[in-house]
Amino acid sequence: MPPTIDDIREAALRIKPHAHRTPVMTSESLNQHVGAQVFLKCENFQKVGAFKFRGAMNAVFSLTAKEAERGVATHSSGNHAQALAMAARLRGVPAYIVMPENAPKVKKDAVAGYSGQITFCKPTLEARESTLAKVIERTGAAVIHPYNNERVIAGQGTAALELLEDVPELDVIIAPVGGGGLLSGTAIAAAETKKGIRIIGAEPEMADDAFRSLNTGQIVPSVNPKTIADGLLTSLGTLTFPILRERVEQIVTVSEKGIVDSMKFMWERAKIIIEPSSAVAVAVLWERKIDLTHLKVGIILSGGNVDLAKLPWQK
Amino acid sequence: MPPTIDDIREAALRIKPHAHRTPVMTSESLNQHVGAQVFLKCENFQKVGAFKFRGAMNAVFSLTAKEAERGVATHSSGNHAQALAMAARLRGVPAYIVMPENAPKVKKDAVAGYSGQITFCKPTLEARESTLAKVIERTGAAVIHPYNNERVIAGQGTAALELLEDVPELDVIIAPVGGGGLLSGTAIAAAETKKGIRIIGAEPEMADDAFRSLNTGQIVPSVNPKTIADGLLTSLGTLTFPILRERVEQIVTVSEKGIVDSMKFMWERAKIIIEPSSAVAVAVLWERKIDLTHLKVGIILSGGNVDLAKLPWQK
Repeated sequence: MPPTIDDIREAALRIKPHAHRTPVMTSESLNQHVGAQVFLKCENFQKVGAFKFRGAMNAVFSLTAKEAERGVATHSSGNHAQALAMAARLRGVPAYIVMPENAPKVKKDAVAGYSGQITFCKPTLEARESTLAKVIERTGAAVIHPYNNERVIAGQGTAALELLEDVPELDVIIAPVGGGGLLSGTAIAAAETKKGIRIIGAEPEMADDAFRSLNTGQIVPSVNPKTIADGLLTSLGTLTFPILRERVEQIVTVSEKGIVDSMKFMWERAKIIIEPSSAVAVAVLWERKIDLTHLKVGIILSGGNVDLAKLPWQK
Repeated sequence: MPPTIDDIREAALRIKPHAHRTPVMTSESLNQHVGAQVFLKCENFQKVGAFKFRGAMNAVFSLTAKEAERGVATHSSGNHAQALAMAARLRGVPAYIVMPENAPKVKKDAVAGYSGQITFCKPTLEARESTLAKVIERTGAAVIHPYNNERVIAGQGTAALELLEDVPELDVIIAPVGGGGLLSGTAIAAAETKKGIRIIGAEPEMADDAFRSLNTGQIVPSVNPKTIADGLLTSLGTLTFPILRERVEQIVTVSEKGIVDSMKFMWERAKIIIEPSSAVAVAVLWERKIDLTHLKVGIILSGGNVDLAKLPWQK
């Protein structure tokens, strides 16, 4: 069952004591450059540096005491791993994180820093899933999927809820799409809060499985995607796909150059650190793939976790 | 005559239509790391990416129509040049900027982008001053000194005024010191708004002329300073020195490593772009040179203009 607007409102109350209400920023340079009035929901300033904290918090804090007591588990090499570890620590239960052994050291350290218990595996989806199965068998932990989970989706939707509270006059909201958790939550929250608001998904051309899924009417898996937007490599889930199909106007794909250029622009002119996956949403405006001239456009800046030693504009 | 608190309040009204009221941010990671409760006044989000816009705006908009009609002029290779060019454009008068010929292209482009008329000169103080004298003779423009100007100082003080409006319970404010314009304005604004508040200047060890000036009781010029904090290379002025002497508790010097480490921490954890000169103020807490444990500490993050192709943690 997809979450309802009431689920998202409950999620907002549930996570409120711990999540940041992130600011909505504007940049005149960006507005001038793209010809629209842009409102940036800064989830890069969220705890663990990404919107993922919202979904993980809502999922972990929705569990009953009995469901939670043996801990929570997931496989992830990204922001969800950190988010789940932190949410579990706040709930006072263990988090078991399966990570590919080749995950960047900075991500391993971050999960360990939030007291997550890491099990390493080979870097394949199969190894990740089988390792997770073993961890669960051993621990009895509750699996929290990074996006194919209705409480996670409800949590992610709280960002759009806040954005529309702050800027109710928005015409459009753009959010990046990987597995579809953020975009699903955003679509439900926005459509049920403001009638007729347009919801657009942003995806790299080089990982355009959501674009193809919505166009063909069935989930097209993401196969070996090669994009700098490392948060958007996953395929849609059975829960997120129908939500997007029903509520998203379209998925717009953007080039790798557009991602890097808009990321650099945001660093240079707006002075905020966003990760490539966030820049994908900015690039929709940047590359002017669709006409949003003079509209009020909300963008969910999904996160700001970047390896500063390896920036895309440096060779 | 040093500016009074009323001058600063007038400056706040004068610049209000054009300057951003920048946000005050907090970072739990930073608080934990330094053991204090830190409030960051984000002048990196100010127009032209630095607090300098405040002082330039106040100076340019304080001129009478007659004083302003022939334009304004300065010599600067840094943020003041951009700020003055933009302020002049907003006033609708020309800005004549003398820049050393070896100034970074990005800074030349920025000044030109704000319609500043650049005259290049040899990269010595003597050449800058003699070239500026010729420009003034030719144009009749009004000189706006980057810090030794009471209206500039009053403008810079508006940042602290806003900070104390947002966080009246501050115990201490730390601001970086180069020529002393920001620190002077901050000291007057803070001391006259909140009795007993401590004002601390932050300076690189490698450019410690303000530290030495306050300790010896006379202006010690900055001679060939070699610090990454390129906004803090200048010497105190005849107007700023007595203000600092009267109102600043002390100047704390920090190491180059402390500057780079705190800058990187702010990028990685707070997800905001600050320039090395701003990190100098953070480094006072970072290096724990003085005991500010458990205090409420305001920091003026002076700016965010950084060449992204040349970051200090990359070799």
